[in-house]
Amino acid sequence: MAQPKYLSGDAAAINEFLDRFDTFLLDCDGVIWSGDHVFEGVVDTLQLLRSRGKQVIFVTNNSTKSREQYLTKFTKLGIPAAADEIFGSAYSSAIYISRILRLPPGRDKVFVLGESGIENELRAEGVRFVGGTDPSFLRNMTPEDFRGIADGSLLDPEVGCVLAGLDMHINYLKLSHALHYLHRGAVFLATNTDSTFPSNSSLFPGAGSIGTAPLAYMSGKRPLPLGKPSQAMLDAVEGRFRLDRSRTCMVGDRLNTDIQFGVEGGLGGTLLVLTGVCKPGDWEKEDAPAVPGFYVDKLSDLLAAGSSSSE
Amino acid sequence: MAQPKYLSGDAAAINEFLDRFDTFLLDCDGVIWSGDHVFEGVVDTLQLLRSRGKQVIFVTNNSTKSREQYLTKFTKLGIPAAADEIFGSAYSSAIYISRILRLPPGRDKVFVLGESGIENELRAEGVRFVGGTDPSFLRNMTPEDFRGIADGSLLDPEVGCVLAGLDMHINYLKLSHALHYLHRGAVFLATNTDSTFPSNSSLFPGAGSIGTAPLAYMSGKRPLPLGKPSQAMLDAVEGRFRLDRSRTCMVGDRLNTDIQFGVEGGLGGTLLVLTGVCKPGDWEKEDAPAVPGFYVDKLSDLLAAGSSSSE
Repeated sequence: MAQPKYLSGDAAAINEFLDRFDTFLLDCDGVIWSGDHVFEGVVDTLQLLRSRGKQVIFVTNNSTKSREQYLTKFTKLGIPAAADEIFGSAYSSAIYISRILRLPPGRDKVFVLGESGIENELRAEGVRFVGGTDPSFLRNMTPEDFRGIADGSLLDPEVGCVLAGLDMHINYLKLSHALHYLHRGAVFLATNTDSTFPSNSSLFPGAGSIGTAPLAYMSGKRPLPLGKPSQAMLDAVEGRFRLDRSRTCMVGDRLNTDIQFGVEGGLGGTLLVLTGVCKPGDWEKEDAPAVPGFYVDKLSDLLAAGSSSSE
Repeated sequence: MAQPKYLSGDAAAINEFLDRFDTFLLDCDGVIWSGDHVFEGVVDTLQLLRSRGKQVIFVTNNSTKSREQYLTKFTKLGIPAAADEIFGSAYSSAIYISRILRLPPGRDKVFVLGESGIENELRAEGVRFVGGTDPSFLRNMTPEDFRGIADGSLLDPEVGCVLAGLDMHINYLKLSHALHYLHRGAVFLATNTDSTFPSNSSLFPGAGSIGTAPLAYMSGKRPLPLGKPSQAMLDAVEGRFRLDRSRTCMVGDRLNTDIQFGVEGGLGGTLLVLTGVCKPGDWEKEDAPAVPGFYVDKLSDLLAAGSSSSE
C-alpha cells in the first residue's frame, strides 16, 4: 500500500502539493482548534490558502451546532469564515431528510436525539420534529410513561424518522421513545457515529456512543450515518458549491472519518494532520480504514510554502 | 443437532422430566411474571415442585432490585419464596467483586451505573461505591465538570472498577465519569448485557443498551458480564447451596441467557417456556446460541404431572 508523503519542513513539496488543488475541505476539531483553543498559525495558514486563490470549506461531524452557531464560534475565535463555507453533520442530516429521504406526508416528523444545532438546521429546511431540547423530555420515566409508550398513546403517530446526534441531555425517557419509534418502522439516521468527542484536551462520549450504539443494540437496527465518512456530507457540500473532486483535498485528523471520506469520495488528495486523534504510523495498522496521501505535523506547517515562494 | 422435547399435554413425559431433577433454577421475567402480572398457574406449579421435594431457586438478570427488594415483590404478588432462594445479577456482581475480584486497597471503590438494587447488594458485601443513585450525579454537565473530569480533579482516585447495570437515570455526566475511570484502568464489569427489558407487555432499553453498549463503544473495552449466561451467576448460587449440577434444570424464556447459562454450566437439563422472548423454532436458527433440552408453552403446563400421578 502506498505510504503518505510527509510535507512538514519541505517547502518545495508543500508548494507542489498546494498547486494540485483548488479547494480544501477542512475538519475543525483537532485540525484548526481543540475546544476553544485555536492551534497556533491556523489563521495565517487559512490566509495563505485564500491568498493563493484556494476555496476553503469547513466540514465537521460535530452536530451540536448549526452553521450559524459555528459562524459565531469562528468569529469569536478570530477565524475569518462565512456561514456558507461551514458544513456540519446537523446540516447534512437536514439536507438528506428534506431533499433525499422525503418522508411521506403524515409520517414526516423527525424524533431528535440531540442539541439545538440539529433543531436549527431541521427548521431551516422546513422539517418538523419532536424531542430534541424540548424540556418536557428532560425528566425521569413515570409508570404512565411506560404504559403510554408501550401502548403508543404517548407516541406521535406522525414520526417517521429517528435522527440521533450528540445529545448531552440523553436520558431513559428519550431512549425509550426512540426505541419505540424504531419498532414502529421509523427510518434510523445518525448525524455521525464518532465514538468520542474531544474537549478540554481529553475525550468525552461522542454521538455514536450516546445515541447510535445504544439504539442499535436495543433495536437490532443499524443507522445510516450522515456525517463523514458518509458521502451524504459531500453531496451537501456539492449542493452548494461546484467542486472539481480531482482538485479537492480533504484535511483532517482522523483516518476513519476525514481520510476515508476523502478517499471514498474520489477526491484528488487527502492530508492528515497530527494535532488530533491520529498518531504517526496509524495508517500502517492492519485495520487502518484509509491511508492519507499526505501528512504534516500540524496545519500551519503549510506556511513554509508561503515564505519560500515569496522570498 | 438434537431437538428439544415438547412436554405440554404429555403427563407421562412431564413426570419423567420432573423425576430427573432435584433442583429447578427459574428465571423470573417472562417465566413467572411479566412486570407485575403473575402468569396463571405459576403459584400452583411452584407448589407442585416443592411438594415433590424439589428445591426451587429464582435466578434473574434484572439488577434493579436486591434480594430483599425481590422478596418484597414476591410477597406482594402472592408467590411464596425466601430471600436466600433469590439470585439477581446485582447480587452475583457484588459477590464477584467482594470474593473473586478483590480490588487492591486504595483502588477498591466501584463506580456504579444503576439503581438501588446494586447499591444494596454492594453494601451487604461491604463494597464501597460512588455514583449510582447519588443525587449529585442527577444533573447536566457544566463546563467545570468537563474540566474536572478531563484533569481528574473531580474523579475519585480510589475507584478501581466500573459496574454497569440497568440505570433508568442514565445521563451524560455519569457516562463521562465512567468513561474516564475506564481510561484510568478501572475493571469493566456489567451486571448483565440484556438488550431489552420487558415491561407493560412491551420492551424497553435494557442494561446492555443503557450502560455497556455505550461504554464499550466509547472506550474500546469489553465488560465482563456477571448475569446469565455468565457462570459467575452459577458460582453465586453454588456459594449458598450444594448443587448436583447433573440433577439441576434451568428454566427460562431466553436462549441467549437462560438456556445458554444452563448448557454452559453443565446442568442436567434446560427447559424453555414460550411466555417470554422466544418463539417456537428460535432454537433452529443458524445463530441460535443454545438449544433447550425441553420446552413447554407455559410453566403451568407442568401441572399436568401432578394431576396424573395423584389420580
